[in-house]
Amino acid sequence: MADNTATTRTETDSMGAIEVPADHYWGAQTERSLHNFDIGRETFVWGRPMIHALGVLKKSAALANKELGELPADIADLIARAADEVIAGKLDAEFPLVVFQTGSGTQSNMNSNEVISNRAIEIAGGEMGSKAPVHPNDHVNRGQSSNDTFPTAMHIAVVCELAAMYPKVRRLRDTLDAKAKEYDDVVMVGRTHLQDATPIRLGQVFSGWVAQIDFALDCIRYSDSRARELAIGGTAVGTGLNAHPKFGESTAEKISEETGIEFTQASNLFAALGAHDALVQVSGSLRVLADALMKIANDVRWYASGPRNGIGELLIPENEPGSSIMPGKVNPTQCEAMTMVATKVFGNDATVGFAGSQGNFQLNVFKPVMAWAILESIQLIGDACVSFDSHCAYGIEPNREKIKENLDKNLMQVTALNRHIGYDKASKIAKNAHKKGLSLRESAIELGFLTNEQFDKWVVPADMTHPSAAE
Amino acid sequence: MADNTATTRTETDSMGAIEVPADHYWGAQTERSLHNFDIGRETFVWGRPMIHALGVLKKSAALANKELGELPADIADLIARAADEVIAGKLDAEFPLVVFQTGSGTQSNMNSNEVISNRAIEIAGGEMGSKAPVHPNDHVNRGQSSNDTFPTAMHIAVVCELAAMYPKVRRLRDTLDAKAKEYDDVVMVGRTHLQDATPIRLGQVFSGWVAQIDFALDCIRYSDSRARELAIGGTAVGTGLNAHPKFGESTAEKISEETGIEFTQASNLFAALGAHDALVQVSGSLRVLADALMKIANDVRWYASGPRNGIGELLIPENEPGSSIMPGKVNPTQCEAMTMVATKVFGNDATVGFAGSQGNFQLNVFKPVMAWAILESIQLIGDACVSFDSHCAYGIEPNREKIKENLDKNLMQVTALNRHIGYDKASKIAKNAHKKGLSLRESAIELGFLTNEQFDKWVVPADMTHPSAAE
Amino acid sequence: MADNTATTRTETDSMGAIEVPADHYWGAQTERSLHNFDIGRETFVWGRPMIHALGVLKKSAALANKELGELPADIADLIARAADEVIAGKLDAEFPLVVFQTGSGTQSNMNSNEVISNRAIEIAGGEMGSKAPVHPNDHVNRGQSSNDTFPTAMHIAVVCELAAMYPKVRRLRDTLDAKAKEYDDVVMVGRTHLQDATPIRLGQVFSGWVAQIDFALDCIRYSDSRARELAIGGTAVGTGLNAHPKFGESTAEKISEETGIEFTQASNLFAALGAHDALVQVSGSLRVLADALMKIANDVRWYASGPRNGIGELLIPENEPGSSIMPGKVNPTQCEAMTMVATKVFGNDATVGFAGSQGNFQLNVFKPVMAWAILESIQLIGDACVSFDSHCAYGIEPNREKIKENLDKNLMQVTALNRHIGYDKASKIAKNAHKKGLSLRESAIELGFLTNEQFDKWVVPADMTHPSAAE
Amino acid sequence: MADNTATTRTETDSMGAIEVPADHYWGAQTERSLHNFDIGRETFVWGRPMIHALGVLKKSAALANKELGELPADIADLIARAADEVIAGKLDAEFPLVVFQTGSGTQSNMNSNEVISNRAIEIAGGEMGSKAPVHPNDHVNRGQSSNDTFPTAMHIAVVCELAAMYPKVRRLRDTLDAKAKEYDDVVMVGRTHLQDATPIRLGQVFSGWVAQIDFALDCIRYSDSRARELAIGGTAVGTGLNAHPKFGESTAEKISEETGIEFTQASNLFAALGAHDALVQVSGSLRVLADALMKIANDVRWYASGPRNGIGELLIPENEPGSSIMPGKVNPTQCEAMTMVATKVFGNDATVGFAGSQGNFQLNVFKPVMAWAILESIQLIGDACVSFDSHCAYGIEPNREKIKENLDKNLMQVTALNRHIGYDKASKIAKNAHKKGLSLRESAIELGFLTNEQFDKWVVPADMTHPSAAE
Repeated sequence: MADNTATTRTETDSMGAIEVPADHYWGAQTERSLHNFDIGRETFVWGRPMIHALGVLKKSAALANKELGELPADIADLIARAADEVIAGKLDAEFPLVVFQTGSGTQSNMNSNEVISNRAIEIAGGEMGSKAPVHPNDHVNRGQSSNDTFPTAMHIAVVCELAAMYPKVRRLRDTLDAKAKEYDDVVMVGRTHLQDATPIRLGQVFSGWVAQIDFALDCIRYSDSRARELAIGGTAVGTGLNAHPKFGESTAEKISEETGIEFTQASNLFAALGAHDALVQVSGSLRVLADALMKIANDVRWYASGPRNGIGELLIPENEPGSSIMPGKVNPTQCEAMTMVATKVFGNDATVGFAGSQGNFQLNVFKPVMAWAILESIQLIGDACVSFDSHCAYGIEPNREKIKENLDKNLMQVTALNRHIGYDKASKIAKNAHKKGLSLRESAIELGFLTNEQFDKWVVPADMTHPSAAE
Repeated sequence: MADNTATTRTETDSMGAIEVPADHYWGAQTERSLHNFDIGRETFVWGRPMIHALGVLKKSAALANKELGELPADIADLIARAADEVIAGKLDAEFPLVVFQTGSGTQSNMNSNEVISNRAIEIAGGEMGSKAPVHPNDHVNRGQSSNDTFPTAMHIAVVCELAAMYPKVRRLRDTLDAKAKEYDDVVMVGRTHLQDATPIRLGQVFSGWVAQIDFALDCIRYSDSRARELAIGGTAVGTGLNAHPKFGESTAEKISEETGIEFTQASNLFAALGAHDALVQVSGSLRVLADALMKIANDVRWYASGPRNGIGELLIPENEPGSSIMPGKVNPTQCEAMTMVATKVFGNDATVGFAGSQGNFQLNVFKPVMAWAILESIQLIGDACVSFDSHCAYGIEPNREKIKENLDKNLMQVTALNRHIGYDKASKIAKNAHKKGLSLRESAIELGFLTNEQFDKWVVPADMTHPSAAE
Repeated sequence: MADNTATTRTETDSMGAIEVPADHYWGAQTERSLHNFDIGRETFVWGRPMIHALGVLKKSAALANKELGELPADIADLIARAADEVIAGKLDAEFPLVVFQTGSGTQSNMNSNEVISNRAIEIAGGEMGSKAPVHPNDHVNRGQSSNDTFPTAMHIAVVCELAAMYPKVRRLRDTLDAKAKEYDDVVMVGRTHLQDATPIRLGQVFSGWVAQIDFALDCIRYSDSRARELAIGGTAVGTGLNAHPKFGESTAEKISEETGIEFTQASNLFAALGAHDALVQVSGSLRVLADALMKIANDVRWYASGPRNGIGELLIPENEPGSSIMPGKVNPTQCEAMTMVATKVFGNDATVGFAGSQGNFQLNVFKPVMAWAILESIQLIGDACVSFDSHCAYGIEPNREKIKENLDKNLMQVTALNRHIGYDKASKIAKNAHKKGLSLRESAIELGFLTNEQFDKWVVPADMTHPSAAE
Repeated sequence: MADNTATTRTETDSMGAIEVPADHYWGAQTERSLHNFDIGRETFVWGRPMIHALGVLKKSAALANKELGELPADIADLIARAADEVIAGKLDAEFPLVVFQTGSGTQSNMNSNEVISNRAIEIAGGEMGSKAPVHPNDHVNRGQSSNDTFPTAMHIAVVCELAAMYPKVRRLRDTLDAKAKEYDDVVMVGRTHLQDATPIRLGQVFSGWVAQIDFALDCIRYSDSRARELAIGGTAVGTGLNAHPKFGESTAEKISEETGIEFTQASNLFAALGAHDALVQVSGSLRVLADALMKIANDVRWYASGPRNGIGELLIPENEPGSSIMPGKVNPTQCEAMTMVATKVFGNDATVGFAGSQGNFQLNVFKPVMAWAILESIQLIGDACVSFDSHCAYGIEPNREKIKENLDKNLMQVTALNRHIGYDKASKIAKNAHKKGLSLRESAIELGFLTNEQFDKWVVPADMTHPSAAE
């Protein structure tokens, strides 16, 4: 092209020169990666969480280097200013690379170095591509290697996204908890093996769901706490070669200040580069939450099945036409979205567990795919909880009529009579009811074992929803 | 907004009226889904394969209905014209919905009905949203239900994407096959348990990789053939209620014509709605290919390890700086991208297998996530094969010097002497060589068991790379 | 021990001498493995399928070597006689090794060589441990390496076990197929999204299950056909060194004769040693069957839920007390066993897929765990199908009363009226019925839109269970 | 049989009478399960951990009931005596049931009730099968349901097996830790992307492995702590119906006393019956350990690859013949067993995660398969660690000669010269060395950039294994 100079700029790296788009900040290595890795581009371009984390890391590293005397103050401040723009999301379009690149994430680390360097140069009034006054390697990447920065950024991204996920999950949890209290008086049929069982209160059912979410959140928080240990300071192989002895620790402090979340340098940097067990642990705990949410969503859709030919004991909001002609057919679409999310989280977890086992020597080179899979799971769980809460959980109501109808038909309550008329007579009442299709009351009266008053007094479903000492 | 009328249009469905953006073709149900399902929007909006498939399906259904007298010719032709635009990709921006919606894909089916209807109305000079002359349900969805159309579109998408994937995989396969022939004369050390073993020819090594790809492609093609059986004609529960008896068969024919790939109506439509076993089978076979590609990529990166402290028997192209100072350090980045893709395919396969088991009664409501996971795997495998081929496989070369050096050091060739000097003496040669760090030749001469000429004649690595009868 | 000589025998291998129990046939390498691999001994000792397969292989190899002039006839015949005892199960106690040993299965291969050699020596009147006249390596393992024999035995075992599994699965399939025919007249409520949908016939429901099984069996048979390609003849690294050029082909023929199943030598032996893609493919297809069986078992237990507070449309046999007091509470225990088996098959499949990707260079050293996982899945599926058939499927019956009651309540049949009284009136009938809790008939009559006779004529659920042309 | 009376005994349950073997303690429900569930019998009969746990539970429950006045002291003491025998393993042959039974584990719960009841009756001098003076349901199962006892036993088993596993893992960990200290002076080549990198000390390599194990153990201990929350007291649906209000808490205390491990009653019993999230969490953390062990075993076998054509920097013990003729070929069989165990743990984890999501309403009916899979993983990990430690790790030694040879060839150390002669000259030295196959020293001298003395002073690999401030 004749006017090539108008649309591209020459950037260089150790392989030589390469033309990059003039209207972008990235440099030679980003451009090479764009050419070399055209894999899943429609889906797998890095999003906010990783870009934000790289910005946080580069700013923090610059400030730490400044403090430790490894970078001149003006250079460090220029880097910090450019990194602030990365953090704020102003330069997202400058991060065009995909997940399926080098397994150390080197190219994304260099992408951040190049963008920050060029933007800092621009701020300083320099010429982009000149690497002066701010050099992508010597300054932005000072005391760092992709091998420690990329996993550090992965952890920052995961921990920050978890922080954003908690309130979303909590919101659903609180809705269910409020329902647990609101409907604690609703006595309904219990079900085990899908078969009729002894009574339970709807509040108890909700409480079980809440307890599952609480448990999963506990597990995730434990895992989260372990993911706050960062690889920074390990440089290329974990030894810290070319980094200041206090660089890792100091950078972790700066990251804590920037994010408001306490991070530390990992106690063993060889493990932190060669493996990502903390992320496997996080993923495993996200799966616990996915398990819980799948159970909850399944329960809700089964309880809401019908309207006439199912269980029908819960009513859920109608958000879209379930059937163009059939009133009352409310498809449990939010439950379906939630259970699909659960299967996706399971798949991501399989990816993470597999990839996490595949390190060799001083490096695990499955870093980007592990980061992507976990971040995707976190996003999906958070979004799905908000969606489920806003469009389903908030509006769950007992179908009191149907609940009572089922409870009245339920024969398992006969067990309440054991203590009063003995097991044998109780059993006869149940058998007679089952055979003739009677209610327990009808059967008991027909057999002459109880009066209506005795039945009222002794067969009280609510009394069957808690323990009691033998009389 | 004051001028709301200028930017939105009123659309209706059985739940009533809703405002939709005036500059979009979609209708009420798409709009509701947009509000109700804000889950993973950054990543999970449907792409070309599903949109294309829905276009193919809607066109084919219209033409089948026309032929069967179920739709007036002019209506069917209008639908076909609008659907042609969907097929061509002109209306991709009209498909804004995400994967995590209703588990039957109803909202995406309605999205296609609404867009095609409104575009057809526009072509006909009518008023968008008026549902005349082309009604989204009565005409575009004629004889159909989401429950049969969405799985039909899933299968069309998967089969078409497989068709696009084959040449990409084949390209890599052919490169490896050419290398197998080119380097069939290169005799090198074999390795089992990572330990030195008897010789093998580099051509044989390549041939094993080619055989793995060929095998996996066979398996995928078998699975593909089974995915060409379509749910169409089953309507809501598999019975075909409200469809013409020949509608499914006829639509499958039209789909075959449109795509150039032979599809048929599934022989049992209850299974085709309630389960998606053919997709589980496809996913399982894609995993076979992922397994093969992981083995190949791992072998390549290990053979290319070094340059000095590894095995170093293969040279791979250098595409980006491996080290800013170290010549010869060529990071096997394409191998890393490929093995990461393999772990992603594994995760997707776990999602598919899980989701595929979760149908209830007449419907499996994990359709969208199954489609997404498989389509993603197909895309990634295809892209990764092209990338690996273009940036790595094409340029793989033997490091003949290193291969010879290793082969010369290799002690396993002593087995060739068994037949000539007996097992005991052969064993002594090997033990002496191992103990003193000698070559086999040096050890044999030192021990006086062979002359140089005998060694030259009897220890011929190439002769150890094929079977032979006892003498 | 003083009389140590009385209870042990000295065996030797290339590492030297070792005492083995005098009352066992195994030799030095088996004994070493016993000492070195005490992992999961309670569960993971090889069973019949692998022992049988090793017997078949060793006999076939001996006969092939005899025919090719690689073994004296008398030696080969002695091996064949001893191997026959292995095949027949007479020497199962001589195979004490566990799965978690060397990843090539070398120790189990040597176990078979040692046992057959010593038993052949015994038959010949020789001294056990003397390795004469039948040497475990030179004769029993003639022209073989663990690297080709063990995967060959794996494939023989898998293919033979599949052959034993088919009739077990088929038996369940045929029971369901008979039910499909027997109950084809039973019209019941259809269900999608767990919500009431248009009618379906019970025969159609069963037919869907049968179709799923048939499909899965097709897939397994395809995979099975690919697993009949054997690694034999590849020896240590796939080159066939030390084997007669026709040894692999000839042994495969002998194996076919012995088993009555057609096996061939794999066309590429490098792939056959370095990877086990055919087993990954088999496992993936077994997962398809597990998916199908999970769907079926889930459907059965939901249809049988109740007796009063569930769906209750199917009755299943009562095999054990569901409740000590509650008649009619029939826990779907066979369904539960089946669905648990499905989750186990899934787990095994994950193991196989993972292990299958981990080959390096000329050998995949995850052979034993892959064999174990697949054989376990085959066994469990076969057993579970027989159990489910014998104790559940055979006795499934429609609860016609409940089916009719549900069908009568079902409102989705209103769609049949669209063609007669128009969509608007039909919709009013449904809405009125839903609001007031009426049946469709009651609502229609109340609104005065139909006569009883018209309702009888137009609302015929059975007519809604098949396609029909517009009138 | 004529003398049938001699060999069987009649036992009864609510379904009636059934003959059981006279020489066994089990009763009617166990016998029925034996007939009804012939699935995977070769492998899946419950072993010590679950039997022990059921014994502990039944004893503890009896003592709690005695204390709470729910059982007469003599009856409770009889139960405790019989349960002590179960705990001690004297009655293992009385537990013949398999995993694939009812999904609540009811039959194994009844198996324990029946065996303890009959053994207690025997101790009391009563007649087995008479259910007096100790009734299996009324006494042994007092205040319990399978739905709370079986998950309680699952947790006891898992927690006790973890307690047994820790020292086994710790033993390997301590061996590696001792090696880390012993070999902290050995400087060797670092490797990233499988490519030569800057130096690292062997002690650091070991320390990374130790850190991985420590991390995984931390995670498992956290999960373990959460598994100590027991379902006991929930009875059939979580409400505690028919149990004394303090029964759960009191039984948990007795279990703590019996095992020496602190257990508590779960705070929400509905979650404890309907889901098993704590076990999913345990399994996920076991997977973290499996990941770590896989990394370690892979590193060891790669470091030990060779003897001549691999990396060869570590020597591992030779436990069995690697090759009958080739000295020095030491197959890394313990590594292979370990990595196979890792893939099995992965598969089990997939089973657990899947099964854990499948609860419905008040019960998850995948209990037995979850227990089996986790217990198997725990056993395998423990056994494999002991095996790996005893037969491999203890004897790992550096091959100092090879390490030095590789280090001398390594070119990455050129980075140490940047600070002395500048990047440009350093780069020229490396390029010259790479091109001509020289060592760094040779190249530096040849180019005249350094003296031998300067090289000795500046290129000190050990100095490159830690951070340092810029000068």
